[in-house]
Amino acid sequence: MGKPFPAEVYAARMERVARAAAGKGLTGLLVTPGPDLAYLCGYEPPINERLTVLVLSTDREPVMIVPRLERGDAERCAGGSQLRLLDWADGSDPYAVAASVLGDMGTYAVTDSAWALHLLGLQEAAAEVAYTSMTRTLPLLRAVKDDGELIRLGAAGAGADRAYEEILKRQFAGRTELEVAADLADLLRHFGHETAEFTLVCSGPNGADPHHHAGSRIISAGDMVVMDFGGLFEGYGSDTTRTVHVGRPTALEEEVHAVVRAAQQAAFEAVRPGVPCQEIDRVARRIIADAGYANYFLHRTGHGIGLSIHEPPYLVEGEEQPLVPGMCFSIEPGIYLAGQFGVRIEDIVTVTETGARRLNESPRELVIVS
Amino acid sequence: MGKPFPAEVYAARMERVARAAAGKGLTGLLVTPGPDLAYLCGYEPPINERLTVLVLSTDREPVMIVPRLERGDAERCAGGSQLRLLDWADGSDPYAVAASVLGDMGTYAVTDSAWALHLLGLQEAAAEVAYTSMTRTLPLLRAVKDDGELIRLGAAGAGADRAYEEILKRQFAGRTELEVAADLADLLRHFGHETAEFTLVCSGPNGADPHHHAGSRIISAGDMVVMDFGGLFEGYGSDTTRTVHVGRPTALEEEVHAVVRAAQQAAFEAVRPGVPCQEIDRVARRIIADAGYANYFLHRTGHGIGLSIHEPPYLVEGEEQPLVPGMCFSIEPGIYLAGQFGVRIEDIVTVTETGARRLNESPRELVIVS
Repeated sequence: MGKPFPAEVYAARMERVARAAAGKGLTGLLVTPGPDLAYLCGYEPPINERLTVLVLSTDREPVMIVPRLERGDAERCAGGSQLRLLDWADGSDPYAVAASVLGDMGTYAVTDSAWALHLLGLQEAAAEVAYTSMTRTLPLLRAVKDDGELIRLGAAGAGADRAYEEILKRQFAGRTELEVAADLADLLRHFGHETAEFTLVCSGPNGADPHHHAGSRIISAGDMVVMDFGGLFEGYGSDTTRTVHVGRPTALEEEVHAVVRAAQQAAFEAVRPGVPCQEIDRVARRIIADAGYANYFLHRTGHGIGLSIHEPPYLVEGEEQPLVPGMCFSIEPGIYLAGQFGVRIEDIVTVTETGARRLNESPRELVIVS
Repeated sequence: MGKPFPAEVYAARMERVARAAAGKGLTGLLVTPGPDLAYLCGYEPPINERLTVLVLSTDREPVMIVPRLERGDAERCAGGSQLRLLDWADGSDPYAVAASVLGDMGTYAVTDSAWALHLLGLQEAAAEVAYTSMTRTLPLLRAVKDDGELIRLGAAGAGADRAYEEILKRQFAGRTELEVAADLADLLRHFGHETAEFTLVCSGPNGADPHHHAGSRIISAGDMVVMDFGGLFEGYGSDTTRTVHVGRPTALEEEVHAVVRAAQQAAFEAVRPGVPCQEIDRVARRIIADAGYANYFLHRTGHGIGLSIHEPPYLVEGEEQPLVPGMCFSIEPGIYLAGQFGVRIEDIVTVTETGARRLNESPRELVIVS
């Protein structure tokens, strides 16, 4: 659960977002439980088969449709005083209630993670209304962080830096990936995170699988070890990756690490307002391709971060969204040599008026661990 | 993560479900990550903005569309050998890949919790295809449990029974709800659950809010305490509620408890194959109404349980689905007197050839705790 902001913050966010939707030609927004709803009104109900939806539009005050059972929770949420609530009882039709609010025309953007069950119910009950993807129409819904959010993201990054500093002092060789991962999770919590969301420790050939988590493999001398870790600080995420080496690296390992580091730095330096997201991906990719590793950089360069660990903007080919000051995202190029090893380096950065600033500051050189 | 079943189990499930869909006039099913996918092929990827979808149809072998990054994980899942995989790379259009599989006609049922983002993408890329809710068209997808599943649900219930037996020996008065809830979670794990998913402890007036979780309220003599707790055993859920009293109850407290207990017992005895789900709800509701508490039973009588804690069938007015042997669900009537106290009693039951059998056996009388 995120720490709440004052009610006025939520009122201002709802108004800004409703206006942004109108500016895109939308009638309004349909926001279901998850980070979008938490951001807009501070309400974080469980996500389940019962319909909860906040309807925002410039035509009227914010309305939230909630299961009757949960009305009390909704009234008491941080932004609850800014909402008109409509409830529905078990056994009644929640989509009919929603349809009465939506009317019979216009286009609404729907939260990306809204359940298909609910979208299909709305499409049937309010069949004259059109529905579209929130991300496609309002990619900036939560992408531009305000000062209060930047403070939390910065604190999350600082906590992750401390965790990395400490893990370097621990023993790697002779322990399993899972043991090191458990240490990292403890350290994240120790340094202020309320939860450790993920601590990937991928040693030797496991590092070449960008989605390996952590397993029973025993780390040994000669291994590259990719550590990708993060958690939540007052509801906002950290996400750092560093690749270290147990004992002395080979020339190939040093070279690959240097290429990834150069790609990460070049992508960071390319960040400034107005640059399209895909350009950051291209900058990182070009450096890796020029070094001869084009086919070994298997994923996009980055993802937005905030109340969710993955959110727009995505730094990926085809994403033409220009960068805006206050956006926060990862820059995380990697090279993966199947059967051998992998290297990834990831920082969270925020776009400033003139360029970019890193929100985590752990050193990026190839550290030798024992 | 659930413990995997043999690959043949998944092959048989996929074939049965594809045939069931055809029997309902559907072309096939679109299954996204979550319990439906885990049930059908043992694959449990993270649920996120990248499209993963299993397409089942009687026309062809099962096809799963996955992000290229996750192809290796998909190949290695328990049912992976039974699937044809199609992958898509970051920056390419996953919905175009899906559309090429779906073709240009027919109706597909979609996992309830599939993201709206993905449904909207499919609706655009395969616009001639119709989409409908999985629950509405195939409520029995996972509702009828096989023997392997019943063993796990029974073991989960037995573990919850042990946890309840132990918590009764602990001190209630003078401790907070959160402390008792933490004890319950420890006990669930101690007695074989891999996770404690929820431990609600609602004392005194908090018991009258059916969605209260646990807070800093200090439990004291004279409190009714509703405890609703469960977790996962080899991927399958337990979910038990008992209401206890600290010290001697009042006549009203005893009466309300007796009414809820009678309603729960009558609903249990009404279970047999062929009875519509809503009839179980009506039986419980009638007893509570006859005792004068009609307006204080605020929710449906129960929900299915299996790989998810809440799943079809739902025991609710309007649900005409007949009960089938092997279905497993909660029976959990309650009475909530705002500002005073609440009582709820919940068991998981399975439908047998002739009636019902409880999967947890904790005593249902009003236990006095200290």
